[in-house]
Amino acid sequence: MLWHVRCDIVLVIMNGGFEFISSGTVTSPKGFIAGATYAGIKKQKNLDLAILASEVPCAAAGLFTRNRIKAAPVVLCQHRLSGGKATGVVINSGCANACTGEQGMADAEEMAVLAAAAIGTYSEQVLVASTGVIGQMMPMERVRAGVKQIKLSRDGGHDMARAIMTTDTVPKEVAVKVKEGGYTIGGAAKGAGMIHPDLATFLCFLTTDARVDPSLLQTALKQAADASFNMVSIDGDTSTNDTLLLLANGTAGNEVISSGTAQAEIFQQALEGLCIHIAKAVIRDGEGATKLFEVTVQGAPDRAAARHVARTVVSSALVKSAIYGNDPNWGRIVAAAGRSGVEIVESKIDLSLDTISLVKAGRPQPFDHDEAVRRLNQAEVFFTLNLNLGSGSAVAWGCDLTEGYVRINSHYTT
Amino acid sequence: MLWHVRCDIVLVIMNGGFEFISSGTVTSPKGFIAGATYAGIKKQKNLDLAILASEVPCAAAGLFTRNRIKAAPVVLCQHRLSGGKATGVVINSGCANACTGEQGMADAEEMAVLAAAAIGTYSEQVLVASTGVIGQMMPMERVRAGVKQIKLSRDGGHDMARAIMTTDTVPKEVAVKVKEGGYTIGGAAKGAGMIHPDLATFLCFLTTDARVDPSLLQTALKQAADASFNMVSIDGDTSTNDTLLLLANGTAGNEVISSGTAQAEIFQQALEGLCIHIAKAVIRDGEGATKLFEVTVQGAPDRAAARHVARTVVSSALVKSAIYGNDPNWGRIVAAAGRSGVEIVESKIDLSLDTISLVKAGRPQPFDHDEAVRRLNQAEVFFTLNLNLGSGSAVAWGCDLTEGYVRINSHYTT
Repeated sequence: MLWHVRCDIVLVIMNGGFEFISSGTVTSPKGFIAGATYAGIKKQKNLDLAILASEVPCAAAGLFTRNRIKAAPVVLCQHRLSGGKATGVVINSGCANACTGEQGMADAEEMAVLAAAAIGTYSEQVLVASTGVIGQMMPMERVRAGVKQIKLSRDGGHDMARAIMTTDTVPKEVAVKVKEGGYTIGGAAKGAGMIHPDLATFLCFLTTDARVDPSLLQTALKQAADASFNMVSIDGDTSTNDTLLLLANGTAGNEVISSGTAQAEIFQQALEGLCIHIAKAVIRDGEGATKLFEVTVQGAPDRAAARHVARTVVSSALVKSAIYGNDPNWGRIVAAAGRSGVEIVESKIDLSLDTISLVKAGRPQPFDHDEAVRRLNQAEVFFTLNLNLGSGSAVAWGCDLTEGYVRINSHYTT
Repeated sequence: MLWHVRCDIVLVIMNGGFEFISSGTVTSPKGFIAGATYAGIKKQKNLDLAILASEVPCAAAGLFTRNRIKAAPVVLCQHRLSGGKATGVVINSGCANACTGEQGMADAEEMAVLAAAAIGTYSEQVLVASTGVIGQMMPMERVRAGVKQIKLSRDGGHDMARAIMTTDTVPKEVAVKVKEGGYTIGGAAKGAGMIHPDLATFLCFLTTDARVDPSLLQTALKQAADASFNMVSIDGDTSTNDTLLLLANGTAGNEVISSGTAQAEIFQQALEGLCIHIAKAVIRDGEGATKLFEVTVQGAPDRAAARHVARTVVSSALVKSAIYGNDPNWGRIVAAAGRSGVEIVESKIDLSLDTISLVKAGRPQPFDHDEAVRRLNQAEVFFTLNLNLGSGSAVAWGCDLTEGYVRINSHYTT
């Protein structure tokens, strides 16, 4: 995983419009503070309780799990975000506060009250997110003591990113600087398992000091999520706690970014680039994963069909197992596409692994097996599937399925 | 797996209406013959080519994969079954004859011609089924030589059941005798991986000597599949080759069974009982599986919703992993039900493991953890999920997800 960590701390120039910041995180944008502590919610003695806040109130947008079973903090956030404003969020790992009924709702509300006192704001301005085991009550005594220990600071984002981890092996945090406008967008997420976001995602917190028209914020977040978090899968299981938040505090002093402008387009590109970066980091660190694979679908009847085929392929247990074993068993990719429900014409399909053509017009192509195995035996593997039916395209990312995934999810309550 | 084999050779009385026959198989009904050989299609030196036939023409029904990528034999069967008649079927394992284009269709047709000569019938009366690796051409020289070696006999069903195996570790074959009517129904199937039947199933061949109104046959088969094969999943991947055939040759001399009669109801019950028996045998022998689990959903808004929830739960990688590890992590079951798309009210959910109540009215119940682990550590595990919203109910079966599944599907092209 070292190569991945390295990737985060190198300055990468992309697109001209924005650039990744060395050691960037959620407190890279101006006016954001964060802190974390070990409160004793997790068994392992690691950070498990964090607060992220803005020094001034923010325009806020959010996307949440479509699972019918929603954790108490999700219900609380959905209610509070109806006003489109927030100042901070309190987050814990180790307990999902899901299937916990009225007591769970009361606990989530109390967490907001406790964090509001630490931030110095009203509790209605505070959002809550939890991740961990479903069906256990929040250990509120520990939370009460823990919140008091948290010190909020302008470089506290790294601690926050670590505090939200469960079976994640590395924190996922990043920030980009948008030159035009002079603002920054930061993000941190936890992933690992029960990852198959549906309209929203795992836990992910995005911050920006940009001034953004509140009416644009939710649309921009949805569009960015559709190109990133909604195109990844680790195990096909959508969580009860998926939460994606974007807080914009406007302290960068830029002209307000409004819908339909060139500035909105630049903001959208930067937000999507950041979200794709985080989504791929989550996949690389999927439970038991040894590699990431990217599936580009082209030539679908429309974009929705392309997205559906790409997600079906990256979710297939058989495709994921073959990629783990460096097995160029392309029939599994074609079979997964075929069962996606999208209209597919076998005699039109082209499939390639990197530059190696595996299938052309639906027919198997002779290929160098050893070279294909070598391409599969990389940290990132690339397939392109062209249905040759239309102009819809999409990209999705998945990870391999390994004995490690089974071990993590069979022998411990996670 | 010994307990399972034992189960097949014991005479079990069920329902009064029908009984399982000791060592029953597809040639248990009168007038059916079968045989198999090792033709060299599979690498392992095991039987890999078989013929099943009736001594007289049959009324025939079939259900097939809904995967958009259909193997050549599936296309051939769908075309030939439009007339509702067949005399036999030739089956091979080791090569799926899928994604093989016009040559694949020509090969499937030639297999029917070769088998027709062996049976002594017209090739249009012969169906074809294949299972194995996708995207490889049929080794027709070996098939031609192999068919000539096959000896058809009245006790050849056991060889046929072995010849259709791929990564299956035990053959799946069974027969039931229906006392009223004096007829028999037999069946044989292969399962193991890429098992998530959709309208049809893997490869399964059912025979009966009952006289059945051809118009009833397809309806009865669909209804039986909906209660059995369409309620199981091993890995969520629907095959390109799913084929379920039912041949009825009428040699038992019973009164013809017509739709809407008491006899049709008895036939349906026996057919469903047999199909459920085979479906469970397939799940027990799922790739890498160590146990079967049964999920009964009650109180759903309607039957379709109950079926959907039950199938979603048995397909969840996280539920399957927890069951492998004997982990009473019931939150994963509730989360899977919640993401099924069916309307669910958290505060109404009851969930139990055998007789142990885990959740009541959406709230976690205190339970004896050691006893729950003991119940999970069995060859068959039973969950009941009551949504308390209506009267829809359904039962689905799944197997655990183990390191063995990953090994089988990562290191070999299967």
